[in-house]
Amino acid sequence: MTEGLLQYLENFLTDQRKNRIEAILANRTRRVTLVLEDLVDPHNASACLRSAEACGIQDVHIVENRHNFQVKTGVSMGSARWLTIRRYRSELLGAADQSPMATLPILDSLAESNDATTRCLSDLREKGYRIYATSPHENSIELPELDPSVPAAIVFGSEKDGISGTARQMADQCLRIPMYGFTESYNISVSAAITLYDVTMRMRNSTYNWHLSDKEKEELRLLWVRQSLRRSEFLEKQFRREQNASTHTMDD
Amino acid sequence: MTEGLLQYLENFLTDQRKNRIEAILANRTRRVTLVLEDLVDPHNASACLRSAEACGIQDVHIVENRHNFQVKTGVSMGSARWLTIRRYRSELLGAADQSPMATLPILDSLAESNDATTRCLSDLREKGYRIYATSPHENSIELPELDPSVPAAIVFGSEKDGISGTARQMADQCLRIPMYGFTESYNISVSAAITLYDVTMRMRNSTYNWHLSDKEKEELRLLWVRQSLRRSEFLEKQFRREQNASTHTMDD
Repeated sequence: MTEGLLQYLENFLTDQRKNRIEAILANRTRRVTLVLEDLVDPHNASACLRSAEACGIQDVHIVENRHNFQVKTGVSMGSARWLTIRRYRSELLGAADQSPMATLPILDSLAESNDATTRCLSDLREKGYRIYATSPHENSIELPELDPSVPAAIVFGSEKDGISGTARQMADQCLRIPMYGFTESYNISVSAAITLYDVTMRMRNSTYNWHLSDKEKEELRLLWVRQSLRRSEFLEKQFRREQNASTHTMDD
Repeated sequence: MTEGLLQYLENFLTDQRKNRIEAILANRTRRVTLVLEDLVDPHNASACLRSAEACGIQDVHIVENRHNFQVKTGVSMGSARWLTIRRYRSELLGAADQSPMATLPILDSLAESNDATTRCLSDLREKGYRIYATSPHENSIELPELDPSVPAAIVFGSEKDGISGTARQMADQCLRIPMYGFTESYNISVSAAITLYDVTMRMRNSTYNWHLSDKEKEELRLLWVRQSLRRSEFLEKQFRREQNASTHTMDD
C-alpha cells in the first residue's frame, strides 16, 4: 500500500526532483546527530537546523528544560521539514502547543531539574551513540580527535550558560573547537556548523558504513515526496479513494 | 626606542597576559586572509571578524562598494581590535567617517562600479595571494580541494547578491562548500567560519611555513600590548617624557 502510494505521488514530481531526492538519500546519515539543549535565540536555533540539514544529518534532538524551542523560517530556510526532529520537553514547560513566545519562570526548587536532558541523552545512549558535550572544559578533546567511526550525538547548550551540568555529567566526553586567537568562543550557530561539517566530512571520507539502511531510505523517501508536493494530502486522499474503488470492483 | 617602549609597557601586564600574547603570535598567520565584500548585516560582519580572529588569521579586507561596513561589538566580541583591518571604499560612498548607519542610493550609471573590489583584489594579487571567490558557481572547486600551500584570499559577498561580477572575474577560482541536503546555501557567517576553520586547520597540519616573520611578530606584539592596556596612551606619554628627561640629562 505504501509503495503504491509512493509511486502514485511520484507521478506528480519532476524527474529532476526525484533525482534530487535520491541523491540526498544516498548522502544522508544517522550516525551523527545534533542535540540542542535550551537554545534561547530562534536565529541560532534555525541556523543550527539549516547547517545540520546541509551536512546531510537526518536527526536533530531538541531539549527544552527552560526554554521553548523556536524556529525562524527565514533563517532555517525551510530545512526543518526535511529533518527528523524529536523534542524532549521538561514538565516545567507544560504542553508543547502553548504560545511559541512564552518562556516560563523557573521555580527555585526545580531550577536544577534538567529532566528533558536526562531523557534525551538516555535515549541516545541506548541507541548506541557516544555523547559529546561541547564545552571549553579542561578535560575536553579537540574536534579533530573526535572519532567518526562511532555514532556521535553532539550536544550544544544555551547561548548564555552553555551545556547544563546534567549534560556534562551524562556525556562520554567534552568536546571543543581548537581556537588560536584572543577570541575565546564562537557563536553557537558557528560552533555547530564547524563541528558538524568537520565530523561529517571525515565520516564521508572514512570506510565506515554511515549510510541509511534501505528501510530507512524508504521511509524518508515517502516523507520527502510528501513534503515536495503542495497538494500532498489531497493527492493521498484521491489515491485511497481510487484504491478503495478498485478493491470494491474486484470484490464484485 | 620601540623596543624600549615595549619593555616599558609590558611591565604593566601580568605574566599570564604576556604568555597569552606570545602563544597567539606563535599561531598567527597572514597566509590566509578574509575579504568581505559589501556585507549589509552588521551581525554577519561581526561574526566573520570573530571567526577569522579565532582561527588565527591576522588580516581582514573590507570592501565597500555600496554598503558601509558596520560591526556589532556584542557579536564580534572585541575581535576587531586584534586584527589588521584594511578598508577599501568606493568613491560612491564618500568619506569613511559619515554616519555609520547611512547607505547611499546607487546612481544608475554607476550601479556596476565595483572600484573598491578592483583595488582590493589587485593589491592582494600583487602581494602573492591566490584569490578565491565563494560562489556555488558550476566551475567552482570544493573547499577540500583548496590548496593550503599557496597564500589564499577568500572573498565572501553580500548576503543577498553574493560576490560581485568584478570579484568573480578577478578571482583565480570560485570556491564552494560541499553540501549534501536540500538546503542550498549557508548563512554568510556560517560559510566564512567553516571555510576559515577548514583551510587554517589544513594549513597548520602542513609543512609550509605559515608563521609570521620575527619583524611581523614584533610589530603585532607592540600593537597587542597597547590594546591590552587600558591606559596605554597615558603610559606611552609617560615613557616618552622619561626618555626625553634622561636624554637631556645625558646631554648635560
